[in-house]
Amino acid sequence: MREFELIEEIRTHNRELAACGGAEVLIPPGDDMALVRMAGRRVLIAADQVIGGRHFAAGTPMSLVARKALARNISDIAAMAAVPSCAVATVALPAGMPDADVRALADGLRAAAQELRCPVVGGDVGTHASADAPLVVSVTVLAEPGPTGRVVTRSGARPGDMLCVTGTLGGGWNADGSGSHLSFTPRVAEALALVELLGDRLHAMIDISDGLGRDAGHLAAESGLTAEIDAERLPLAAGADWRAGIGRGEDYELAFACDGAPPDALCGTPVTVVGHFIAGTAGRVLVRAAGAEHDASSLGWEHGS
Amino acid sequence: MREFELIEEIRTHNRELAACGGAEVLIPPGDDMALVRMAGRRVLIAADQVIGGRHFAAGTPMSLVARKALARNISDIAAMAAVPSCAVATVALPAGMPDADVRALADGLRAAAQELRCPVVGGDVGTHASADAPLVVSVTVLAEPGPTGRVVTRSGARPGDMLCVTGTLGGGWNADGSGSHLSFTPRVAEALALVELLGDRLHAMIDISDGLGRDAGHLAAESGLTAEIDAERLPLAAGADWRAGIGRGEDYELAFACDGAPPDALCGTPVTVVGHFIAGTAGRVLVRAAGAEHDASSLGWEHGS
Repeated sequence: MREFELIEEIRTHNRELAACGGAEVLIPPGDDMALVRMAGRRVLIAADQVIGGRHFAAGTPMSLVARKALARNISDIAAMAAVPSCAVATVALPAGMPDADVRALADGLRAAAQELRCPVVGGDVGTHASADAPLVVSVTVLAEPGPTGRVVTRSGARPGDMLCVTGTLGGGWNADGSGSHLSFTPRVAEALALVELLGDRLHAMIDISDGLGRDAGHLAAESGLTAEIDAERLPLAAGADWRAGIGRGEDYELAFACDGAPPDALCGTPVTVVGHFIAGTAGRVLVRAAGAEHDASSLGWEHGS
Repeated sequence: MREFELIEEIRTHNRELAACGGAEVLIPPGDDMALVRMAGRRVLIAADQVIGGRHFAAGTPMSLVARKALARNISDIAAMAAVPSCAVATVALPAGMPDADVRALADGLRAAAQELRCPVVGGDVGTHASADAPLVVSVTVLAEPGPTGRVVTRSGARPGDMLCVTGTLGGGWNADGSGSHLSFTPRVAEALALVELLGDRLHAMIDISDGLGRDAGHLAAESGLTAEIDAERLPLAAGADWRAGIGRGEDYELAFACDGAPPDALCGTPVTVVGHFIAGTAGRVLVRAAGAEHDASSLGWEHGS
């Protein structure tokens, strides 16, 4: 929980920074990406990292580590309904990491850039002083608004809006570190299709990285509402129960708030209505399961941030 | 040396990536920043990191670690004669790092953003699995071309050009980890003034992070020339000998190639002619000291990358 509190504190302070010079900040820290105006144009920017032992297990192939580092950033681009422009990466290598692993990491980043259509244009390779220090891959992505020009934030959900998700939930991160977090396709195309299809009926969006419980809570908090989730409607991954579907995280699907029915599918990816938004305590998430009501704040993400 | 080889390999491969979609890449990896075209406008981007035990010593105040993480990126902006727009940061914290230290890090980043006029608009805070894992702060900066519209690269030096530096050299990193690397002011104003003053007489520029020997070598390599440095002309920091001035690194001054005499000072910062460029093996750097000639490739940076 500590990181979330700290991020909140940093975010609050950083909102005060908008006047320190440099680019005009249109969407400050606190959404999936920041939006700035540079030379009269809007540019989206976000950064995220993968840390050995936290975001991937020992023995994970370097190609998959590299792909995840880029893909989870591209998922943030999808969450804003934006289009990837380019990325930069910094890599902190354990001392003495075999050259073959380093090459596999670089090759994996390049392959992911090609697959996800987001060239890696710069960065830095550094080495830890110790061989025991974990690999850290930090990626920053730039993006542009899509063809409609609309950037979709976490705020804007209204009472009565449906809460919808793409794909399946609960299969992102298994106990042994396997799961779709190593192979997911960021929902960039789906998000762009959604904006075109729903227009003004699409009110708010986020990607599910911390788990639907927490991420629906972000939508609810930024919109000043409460979210209600019906556990029986969750599109669960094979082997996942509703608690995994709500709490495990690393699904990298989209969660969005819309007025009226969503499409059944986007670009072949199923869409499911899993709940709705109501007036109530801002940021609260209630889960109805087997006749009982749970507060999702008690169903945290299992493996850290 | 290993990181330099790997960076070169990654760079070479990444140059092939320009056609994978996303932004048009105008300056690919290999300069101080990449230059991309987004929505018809030119945007500069670079990323760099500081790693505990490598880029700062144990016991360094967190405020100075944060400042260095941002300032060395701003130094890359200066090297292109560009203007800071905004930054994002990811932080990998050792497990159990005291909250006071985390707050000092966040406060330091905010203070540095204000001082350097580059708002930190987003990022991520993560925690290592172990308390022994080193703090890693990765910062990405965006920048725009300055008022003249000119972006100055490492290539373009011509035979006969003077090799000039700002400020003093050799005081960046002392044996105990102290030095100006924790307090330097990136030469953004100086670089902008230089472009205005010299116009087309300014041919190439870099910031001195790896040491003048290596960084003059980058100018020489990208320009297809050899650089000659006169050790007696080096503007040495107090206590530094010519070997430290050439090889120690972390000076974060500008080195540039120009046709004819440079100004004596820029914004109050002295400018010194320390050598010149000649036709010869591309990337070779020769240092004349006390009547002898040394190949600078034998005078590497002392404390790593």
